Amino acid sequence: MKILTRDLTLKTSGAGDLINITDELRGILKESKLKEGAMTVFAVGSTFAVTSFEYEPGLIKDMKELYEKLVPSNRSYGHDDTWGDANGFSHLRAALQGPSLTLPFRSSQLLTGVWQQVVAAEFDNRPRTRQIIVQLMGE
Amino acid sequence: MKILTRDLTLKTSGAGDLINITDELRGILKESKLKEGAMTVFAVGSTFAVTSFEYEPGLIKDMKELYEKLVPSNRSYGHDDTWGDANGFSHLRAALQGPSLTLPFRSSQLLTGVWQQVVAAEFDNRPRTRQIIVQLMGE
Amino acid sequence: MKILTRDLTLKTSGAGDLINITDELRGILKESKLKEGAMTVFAVGSTFAVTSFEYEPGLIKDMKELYEKLVPSNRSYGHDDTWGDANGFSHLRAALQGPSLTLPFRSSQLLTGVWQQVVAAEFDNRPRTRQIIVQLMGE
Repeated sequence: MKILTRDLTLKTSGAGDLINITDELRGILKESKLKEGAMTVFAVGSTFAVTSFEYEPGLIKDMKELYEKLVPSNRSYGHDDTWGDANGFSHLRAALQGPSLTLPFRSSQLLTGVWQQVVAAEFDNRPRTRQIIVQLMGE
Repeated sequence: MKILTRDLTLKTSGAGDLINITDELRGILKESKLKEGAMTVFAVGSTFAVTSFEYEPGLIKDMKELYEKLVPSNRSYGHDDTWGDANGFSHLRAALQGPSLTLPFRSSQLLTGVWQQVVAAEFDNRPRTRQIIVQLMGE
Repeated sequence: MKILTRDLTLKTSGAGDLINITDELRGILKESKLKEGAMTVFAVGSTFAVTSFEYEPGLIKDMKELYEKLVPSNRSYGHDDTWGDANGFSHLRAALQGPSLTLPFRSSQLLTGVWQQVVAAEFDNRPRTRQIIVQLMGE
């Protein structure tokens, strides 16, 4: 059993940016030479999250509309009063979606579905440089 | 430390089907003879998810109503335009609920609560044959 | 590789109580003397969950309002008819938020963001004594 902890750095374009990181995850797995185990994908930061969905333009638009419906950006939140930074909605969306996914792999392949891409979700209201921790445990 | 990766295959009855897989997970744990570690449960596919709740008829009905309220099925989504398959709502529900759970075990027992069943959620709009990856890591 | 499974016991003050457990998790990591690996945090019980957000009064209020909006407490649910215990909303919120998080660590530090606290969410409608399983796997 081995553990490898890698950093994936992303530049995002601001509120609502959804970035497909599946290829980067596959690259990290390949480079590790591990065959069987689990990959933890962890979004660092309280206005950032990871999820998985079929990464195509129609659904990307749908996901943005869903977040807007569940947690509207056009109102103020208690958090905005605390810091005056107007990104209360960003924090709420990140907490709801969650920061971590665990993905099993076997025969050196991620066991995700064909249409099941792993996606980093920038919820903050401005472009950010982001860090995702990718940790592999296996053999 | 050992890793075991098992496939659990399910036949679902279509949109909204919620299937209690707790007994199957306990069976896989028992068969593994592992005593302490973590079980990752991963739903393969972008219109499928896993969650946990008390599996009783009232709450099963409530969960279906909650998904319908948060992501209505009686409207069209951008995703539907892409493929013409009318299951945009299925993808959105799966992304919101998430594909993976990690369950600790000790003394050969899953450390879930008495009323905390693990449930596979079919969100697609037709019956499917589904695969759940159950991966154990422990000793 | 080592596995350590610890129990964290909390007393909650009832519906909506959000408790910052980050210091307790850091203490368990420190005591373990493990340097690199993953920490699974699992909320035992079907009306209890874990999430992560910036733990400050404005956002704590916002989170409570978000749960109330998504799953209102002032109506009855199918689950309430089953048991007569009126906490259907508690179960639904817990299922939506999810019971588990996986947090990577390296150089003996949790790799969470500076403002990304780990929070236990009491969704039940009365004070409870709660158990959180904290499992470390690493070296």
